[in-house]
Amino acid sequence: MNFDFKDLFAFTKDIFIKIGCPEADAQSATEVLLSADLRGVDSHGVARLSGYVRLWEAGRINPTPNIRIVHETPSTAVVDGDGGLGLVVAPIAMQIAIGKAKNAGTGWVSVKNSNHYGIAGHHALQAVKEDMIGMSMTNASPLVSPTFSKERLLGTNPIAVAIPAGEEPPFVADMATTTAANGKLEILQRKQQEAPTGWVQDKDGNPTNNAFGVKEGGALLPLGGDREHGSHKGYALGSIVDIFSAVLSGANYGPWVPPFVAFLEPDPNPVGEGIGHFFGAMRVDAFRPADEFKGHMDNWIKRFRAAETTPGHKKVLIPGDPERALEIERMENGIPLLEPVQEDLKALGEKLGIPFRG
Amino acid sequence: MNFDFKDLFAFTKDIFIKIGCPEADAQSATEVLLSADLRGVDSHGVARLSGYVRLWEAGRINPTPNIRIVHETPSTAVVDGDGGLGLVVAPIAMQIAIGKAKNAGTGWVSVKNSNHYGIAGHHALQAVKEDMIGMSMTNASPLVSPTFSKERLLGTNPIAVAIPAGEEPPFVADMATTTAANGKLEILQRKQQEAPTGWVQDKDGNPTNNAFGVKEGGALLPLGGDREHGSHKGYALGSIVDIFSAVLSGANYGPWVPPFVAFLEPDPNPVGEGIGHFFGAMRVDAFRPADEFKGHMDNWIKRFRAAETTPGHKKVLIPGDPERALEIERMENGIPLLEPVQEDLKALGEKLGIPFRG
Repeated sequence: MNFDFKDLFAFTKDIFIKIGCPEADAQSATEVLLSADLRGVDSHGVARLSGYVRLWEAGRINPTPNIRIVHETPSTAVVDGDGGLGLVVAPIAMQIAIGKAKNAGTGWVSVKNSNHYGIAGHHALQAVKEDMIGMSMTNASPLVSPTFSKERLLGTNPIAVAIPAGEEPPFVADMATTTAANGKLEILQRKQQEAPTGWVQDKDGNPTNNAFGVKEGGALLPLGGDREHGSHKGYALGSIVDIFSAVLSGANYGPWVPPFVAFLEPDPNPVGEGIGHFFGAMRVDAFRPADEFKGHMDNWIKRFRAAETTPGHKKVLIPGDPERALEIERMENGIPLLEPVQEDLKALGEKLGIPFRG
Repeated sequence: MNFDFKDLFAFTKDIFIKIGCPEADAQSATEVLLSADLRGVDSHGVARLSGYVRLWEAGRINPTPNIRIVHETPSTAVVDGDGGLGLVVAPIAMQIAIGKAKNAGTGWVSVKNSNHYGIAGHHALQAVKEDMIGMSMTNASPLVSPTFSKERLLGTNPIAVAIPAGEEPPFVADMATTTAANGKLEILQRKQQEAPTGWVQDKDGNPTNNAFGVKEGGALLPLGGDREHGSHKGYALGSIVDIFSAVLSGANYGPWVPPFVAFLEPDPNPVGEGIGHFFGAMRVDAFRPADEFKGHMDNWIKRFRAAETTPGHKKVLIPGDPERALEIERMENGIPLLEPVQEDLKALGEKLGIPFRG
């Protein structure tokens, strides 16, 4: 069953207003959340709305944060999110990075005292509108074990990079630094299927094909899966995201990152404040004239798209192609929501007095 | 057979001087090249010396380049390497990034018209001496096929990130964006062993365990190996390196990157000049006081190092640990060189009148 974008948007925004967000913040948070649903990152869209509300009910979200710069140089800033919704903090921090880039060529913003910020790629894409390369990363609750570690010490810590082109649509990479995102495991769980080798280890630290392995005390594996296939590289990438997002800003890092789910308590001895993010913006014309850059990006994209394919595949995709196709399709035909997500939103609406699909 | 660091250094520097490098450039190039041998990246050290000389003999290296900034903003620059040795161009470009960071908080330098620059991690580490985070990446001759592509369109395009700590040694990630670097395949070839699944595809684009697969017209695979294991992420990372290094600067990109080996001709219709690199430097105290940052980096490193391990493994490594251990060991006990590398250096020395090991 598909839901109209505008209806879902209105419902979500009303929920955020109901829990006390100012109108502009509710608008901003809804734009970020719905962007995930449109782009097919269903695990980070309205499926999480009631999770945010539960965090707010638990007193772990500040609905009216004083989001501010606490330290800066011409090209950098640290932003204190004041415990606000990451969905509200992140767009403001990204705009600060863009503003810095206008003056200094590039802008780099590390954020502390925030919360989960939705889909990484959405934030990076804001820079593209200004003829800038955008970057966005965030740490997250520990679900991932470094190579040779039995313990979960990192989140799925995504990296997004969005690069403008000319006639062609932008290049948008948006990736968890694990072999597979947790959302993909959830799909296998629902289908009662096994997970491919290299995705998960069990609670004893052994490789497993059990799609429930993470839920049963195991861990997601860094991109690469095992040492022989380069998991030390995925581990290093996830670590860089953690350090840029949290050690630079003063947020919690590694195993201290507070959980997204409200039923788990944050560590009583935190090493920082909240969750951390990192944003970057680089003006293309801080390097060469924008039209030259875009012309060569078009050429790059066309050459890769035209590559001869391996057996059984029709074309080589450019990062961002699948999400863009889904966005067009879902804006037209609506957003499919799983039965449990529909039930969840209906119950949330009833509780807060906002009818779900009227 | 092990060779003393000082002897190899003197020999290498004399070779660079002999082909016409000014003394300071020869010193700088030798430092970069030997850094690879010390850190165990043997494929990027003196094993490549005669390759550089052959490029010079073919007229494809400018021994006395006018390396200069052609465009800049407070936090960015594009550097024209003037066809010089990448081993000479890269240290200068990295120092420009560091200088920008001193004034603007961060510095970002994209380089065109360069050549192979040796070991990525060495350049990133220069920033750490200044209490900065250093980044370094480069594109390279096409050996890698994007996901679903039969054609080789990317190099092994490494990313290095070096992060200072306090009592602990720095965090140094230095990784090809492929499952395995070409040097690892060469080891398997010498041992007549098979390559693990996910490293290589054959000339028809099918997965293969043939360690000679790349030499026989196939390709290295992006980190992840195949789509199910996230190769689209490795492909995106390698693409970002290519775009930052070459589309931003005006160097050649993708399949147009000129070959390192002198017996292959560069594309007669280049899309840019030479090979491209990208360097970054971020002052730690552009975000928070350096001692606070370093204290938390120490805590981060200690927590990860102390993690409980998976069965059969003694400890969790921090990125940079193995290379640092080798560097200490090889500085003390000498650098092992394979028989063919010794032969090659001996022949090179005879040709240029520089005795190899006197």
